[in-house]
Amino acid sequence: MNTATTIDSLRINGERLWDSLMQLAQIGATPKGGVCRLTLTDLDKQGRDLVIGWAIDAGMRITIDQIGNGFMRRAGRNNALPPIMTGSHIDTQPTGGKFDGNYGVLAGIEVVRTLNDHGIETEAPIEVAFWTNEEGSRFVPVMMGSGVFAKAFTLAHAYAATDTEGKTVKDELARIGYIGEQEPGDHPIGAYFETHIEQGPVLEDNDTTIGVVQGVLGIRWFDCTVTGMEAHAGPTPMALRKDALQVATPLMQDVVAAARRHPPHGRGTVGMVQVFPNSRNVIPGRVKFSIDLRNSTDELVDEMADEVKALAARLSAESGLGIQIEQVSSYPAQVFHPDCVDAVARAAHKLGYSNMPVVSGAGHDAVYMANLAPSGMIFIPCKDGISHNEIEDAKPEHLTAGCNVLLHAMLERAGVVG
Amino acid sequence: MNTATTIDSLRINGERLWDSLMQLAQIGATPKGGVCRLTLTDLDKQGRDLVIGWAIDAGMRITIDQIGNGFMRRAGRNNALPPIMTGSHIDTQPTGGKFDGNYGVLAGIEVVRTLNDHGIETEAPIEVAFWTNEEGSRFVPVMMGSGVFAKAFTLAHAYAATDTEGKTVKDELARIGYIGEQEPGDHPIGAYFETHIEQGPVLEDNDTTIGVVQGVLGIRWFDCTVTGMEAHAGPTPMALRKDALQVATPLMQDVVAAARRHPPHGRGTVGMVQVFPNSRNVIPGRVKFSIDLRNSTDELVDEMADEVKALAARLSAESGLGIQIEQVSSYPAQVFHPDCVDAVARAAHKLGYSNMPVVSGAGHDAVYMANLAPSGMIFIPCKDGISHNEIEDAKPEHLTAGCNVLLHAMLERAGVVG
Repeated sequence: MNTATTIDSLRINGERLWDSLMQLAQIGATPKGGVCRLTLTDLDKQGRDLVIGWAIDAGMRITIDQIGNGFMRRAGRNNALPPIMTGSHIDTQPTGGKFDGNYGVLAGIEVVRTLNDHGIETEAPIEVAFWTNEEGSRFVPVMMGSGVFAKAFTLAHAYAATDTEGKTVKDELARIGYIGEQEPGDHPIGAYFETHIEQGPVLEDNDTTIGVVQGVLGIRWFDCTVTGMEAHAGPTPMALRKDALQVATPLMQDVVAAARRHPPHGRGTVGMVQVFPNSRNVIPGRVKFSIDLRNSTDELVDEMADEVKALAARLSAESGLGIQIEQVSSYPAQVFHPDCVDAVARAAHKLGYSNMPVVSGAGHDAVYMANLAPSGMIFIPCKDGISHNEIEDAKPEHLTAGCNVLLHAMLERAGVVG
Repeated sequence: MNTATTIDSLRINGERLWDSLMQLAQIGATPKGGVCRLTLTDLDKQGRDLVIGWAIDAGMRITIDQIGNGFMRRAGRNNALPPIMTGSHIDTQPTGGKFDGNYGVLAGIEVVRTLNDHGIETEAPIEVAFWTNEEGSRFVPVMMGSGVFAKAFTLAHAYAATDTEGKTVKDELARIGYIGEQEPGDHPIGAYFETHIEQGPVLEDNDTTIGVVQGVLGIRWFDCTVTGMEAHAGPTPMALRKDALQVATPLMQDVVAAARRHPPHGRGTVGMVQVFPNSRNVIPGRVKFSIDLRNSTDELVDEMADEVKALAARLSAESGLGIQIEQVSSYPAQVFHPDCVDAVARAAHKLGYSNMPVVSGAGHDAVYMANLAPSGMIFIPCKDGISHNEIEDAKPEHLTAGCNVLLHAMLERAGVVG
């Protein structure tokens, strides 16, 4: 079991992976086939306990840090080496699915089980992490555990976050028994991989099994407010109107056009619109809408934003109406480390899976980890590109394929003793 | 006092008119200087009682009909002739002003007071009406009293209307003591005039005192629904989106463009927009918006609607998204009688007031009355074109001018005994 050929033929147990996914999905299962397991609830504790039990059964050593991140470690031959890590999250959206996050954690457990089955020792240790509150549905900020781990914000900031009932992260962590002693981020990492359903339609649309994730798109969120003058729709002739909606609509269209002007990864969305007073026979006096711009580099996102802002200035000058564009949030683009990206591509190629380079349009814990260690992600298709929904679905053969790619990418980085 | 020259020099008492307006505005006065006197409330009763008291003081005979419309009659020499009528309403919007409606009723009272002051007898009787529930804020349909009078709908239909607390029109009419015995519409009318603030900016913009109202625009209301597919703003590339908002925006723009294609009276408004799920990072799966189209003839409104529908069909075919346009309401255009329109124009000219032909973009009791008798309206400017608002305002000299025009137009139609 220690020649290159033998290692190449190594495969994970897809049925076992599927069974674990389905068992975990029972905790917080919803009538429509989804999962509601909000972070730091009793159900989250049950999920954490189940996963840790499996890790202990697999001979792993468990550490919990002060923000409740769980690290499950399989020793290597040289434990002075930083571990090769994989992970994701097991909290879900209120109407979430079975695979988002959970797949990334259980794929890591399955990698370890497979190594155990075949008696394979790695040079560097293998570590599987579950990160606290990736979803951000109950407490903000999102990606809280990995964010604290990567020192994107402080532990104190995360502890103080409250849910709608006023309960704090710290109290809820303590209540479910998941405040550990380890200081977040106190151990070095050799490399980080994360497997995840795509949450988009690209792989399915291209009939491709493995997405070799090149990076995560940078995001800028803006609020745009157009201020006109409300007036009666009947008695006010067209020439005397200051119709905020009519000045807003070309700008809404340009958000999409800006994305199309910057292919292939440009994305532009107006998802939220509020019209005031929002009455059938009153000309809108004010329109507020959201702008979501994304692209593969921060420079491209900035170019898109500049174009939209330039049009806003022109429309404001032409119409005489006020247009304000205010940045709400900004997440930098993250390009994954070529060594990790290549390791994923090589593994997919070696295993004979159809694969293509993709980008992630959504944030993941891997974005924060990329600041600490060479990182990469593996995407598999999800049905109709739908996620954050109880009907989220993925095929067993794709889940198996992604886990096999993870296994081989991690082994390449960890080194096999032989 | 009975030669043509003497009649031509007749003027109403502007100060008395203003004082009456300000007294009536005390009933339901709001801290911001407006009036809240909803139909069939205790305050409405107080307003009705005050106006009727003034009419009795002016020697008029009062009749209340079964829907609570009030008719205040000054006898003519030949009382077999149908009366020359004027009127409007004294109910207000919840955050209404002092002039909308009230001016039309009190201008009628002031005409009678002026005739009394000068001992002028008319051939035909003069009648001043206040119509129940013109505003429609508490009970629908709007223009209820004049609508029942003109048999646009039945008394039973109006009686059954309920407010948000479930109280009916009939019970509330009885409670405030304003169910009369006269069957609505049982008496013929010689001509009908209504003075009103413009509720729009045209007269002010043209620095003109009197609007000679040619007619009331026809209205069609539609609801438009565009159905796409909601998806995550991040992971979904532009080419794979079904963004309902992006298909809706050109249609929203065409509602306005259709109005501009049919000048001078075309009006197009999208006043209400709902985006689903209305979340910053979710591509809109469905957008619902209102369409309000108006023009001076029904044919022109239909042309505008047909153009918008044609674009909707084209956009639906191009995008593959469903677009439904459903008619919600339709109000026919009303052209006022040339005799009444001319009488208003002649009076304005004779009195030396700047004047211009205008149309009414909003509905008025005169629309229903035009089905029963030759009718016309007199508009005066209101500040910034603002109405249905506590800051609604009008200048004393304009209120006086409009009332003088009313006086002379009514005298032309009623005939002066001399």
